[in-house]
Amino acid sequence: MANDKVTLAHGAGGKVSQELMEQVILPAYGNPVLNTLHDGALVEMKGEVAFTTDSYVVQPLFFAGGNIGKLAVCGTVNDLSMTGAIPRYLSVGMIIEEGFPIKDLQTIVSTMKKMADEAGVVIATGDTKVVEKGKADGIFINTAGIGDKIPGTHISPENVKPGMKVILSGYIGDHAAAIMAGRHNINLPASVQTDCAPLNKMTKAMLEAVPDIAVMRDPTRGGVAAVLNEIAEASKCGILIDEDEIPIHAEVQGVCDMLGFDPLYLANEGKCVAFVPAESADKVLKAMRTSPYGQEARVIGEVTAEAPGTVGLRTGIGGIRVVDMPLGNIVPRIC
Amino acid sequence: MANDKVTLAHGAGGKVSQELMEQVILPAYGNPVLNTLHDGALVEMKGEVAFTTDSYVVQPLFFAGGNIGKLAVCGTVNDLSMTGAIPRYLSVGMIIEEGFPIKDLQTIVSTMKKMADEAGVVIATGDTKVVEKGKADGIFINTAGIGDKIPGTHISPENVKPGMKVILSGYIGDHAAAIMAGRHNINLPASVQTDCAPLNKMTKAMLEAVPDIAVMRDPTRGGVAAVLNEIAEASKCGILIDEDEIPIHAEVQGVCDMLGFDPLYLANEGKCVAFVPAESADKVLKAMRTSPYGQEARVIGEVTAEAPGTVGLRTGIGGIRVVDMPLGNIVPRIC
Repeated sequence: MANDKVTLAHGAGGKVSQELMEQVILPAYGNPVLNTLHDGALVEMKGEVAFTTDSYVVQPLFFAGGNIGKLAVCGTVNDLSMTGAIPRYLSVGMIIEEGFPIKDLQTIVSTMKKMADEAGVVIATGDTKVVEKGKADGIFINTAGIGDKIPGTHISPENVKPGMKVILSGYIGDHAAAIMAGRHNINLPASVQTDCAPLNKMTKAMLEAVPDIAVMRDPTRGGVAAVLNEIAEASKCGILIDEDEIPIHAEVQGVCDMLGFDPLYLANEGKCVAFVPAESADKVLKAMRTSPYGQEARVIGEVTAEAPGTVGLRTGIGGIRVVDMPLGNIVPRIC
Repeated sequence: MANDKVTLAHGAGGKVSQELMEQVILPAYGNPVLNTLHDGALVEMKGEVAFTTDSYVVQPLFFAGGNIGKLAVCGTVNDLSMTGAIPRYLSVGMIIEEGFPIKDLQTIVSTMKKMADEAGVVIATGDTKVVEKGKADGIFINTAGIGDKIPGTHISPENVKPGMKVILSGYIGDHAAAIMAGRHNINLPASVQTDCAPLNKMTKAMLEAVPDIAVMRDPTRGGVAAVLNEIAEASKCGILIDEDEIPIHAEVQGVCDMLGFDPLYLANEGKCVAFVPAESADKVLKAMRTSPYGQEARVIGEVTAEAPGTVGLRTGIGGIRVVDMPLGNIVPRIC
């Protein structure tokens, strides 16, 4: 590029915008759908379609194990996956602050392409806007996604019934710990990285093994605590989980102790919570373990008829404490 | 709301986020698809699907005849329309600066609902993030949209052939003039307002009347000049338009003269440029005039075999000047 920083002209829709497309965006994403550069993409879908969106405002933009582009692809892939769909196409809307380094933009879009390839989704359409210095915070990325709903599945918290098992796909809090460490310059072992990953192949295996999974959710903002509370409320059931079954890396627990956070409330970007009929739990776990992202999957609790609408945690010493819905004063800009 | 400003907690995914959803967003958008509040929406589509996205960063957020929410719905509705599709569902991703007045947010989302209703589209899924004061500029809105491609149509600049007519749906530059007047506190007559409007019903009527319309585009960023240049380049044809046929309100021309802009380069948010076989031009015009947004539709030029890849303007005094692709130093943050 003539200029090594993003300028307002890159977002104005003229020749300079075209250059950004042709020299940065297309070489990274390049595919037949996007290359036509129409106002929109035309894609073939088959009946029931899942549709979702998320904006990403994470700070810092680069952190242990990932960057905002990785989040932007995986987050939307995972939202589609959790509705019981096979993610197919993504849109990418970028809002860039004037002066943002082109090199960083290149890193971000090439990460997006890499994650899209891993997930098997195509970046089909996009848009880039530039705002003046001081009017954004580096880069914000919105992705929307569409996917083919897997026939015969019906994901809804209303399906949750007493006796069902609660499954968690692995260690929690890694993403939030990586972000907080990056933000506060806390030195963590290299092993503490974002868990950000595309879960669509794992959830597809789960639903193929057990089509009557009641509900799946990815515990992002608000963490496992928010997801469980939302499901308890919607299903009018109680949920009781076992503290000892919830996997937390010692270093993540350390960051939490240092900063005063409860890992149950921390965002994850590559985890899945699933509610399944008790008799199918082993089958679901087996399916999850076919994925690199489900190796540590386990049952962490069950659904109860008692205490409808509330989430309880059976502690290591035998008591039960209520896990409330987070209020809102958790870690901001975690995704 | 307990608080009359948006806070970081409103974007954190906890109880306070839920309140924003339940007290501001759902009452405005409320519909069965959105109300389920899953990670994504499930919608029924039929085969070929158009998919598009745009982020809106316009300043000022409120301007003569509209606000950022009106743009965000109409812009994406129009992008879908220009691909030859019937817009069906929208996603809405909002990035809000801490301290943004809830009252303004309510105005914006209720405008979005109103425009969605006019266009006949459903806001199916969404996401809200909040960033710290000084890290955004009030509010940024991304919309993505999906629509059903109208069977039998094939919109592509490669279809453009010498002899075809160029149709423009009405007066140009109104949107940019309204924004510039708002930004520079220029007092304009109340008649100068954004032209922002959903064009989907007009384009549907056009395609029903003449399915072999070669290409349609909405001349937003970069204006009519950018659209014509893109089509000239892609089709390897020349395009010759008549200055006298291009409708510009006197007040808009006045703003352009004052600020040194050429209306051909100014963004429109409710206009359509269509390339049609010469023998079908009257039929297309008749269809356009069934819409309130096509009353001033007219032929503004034709496609030529000469001067491939370039756009010429036949001036009032009989000369021809080349209309270049805009470089990039046009009005920033116009949409």
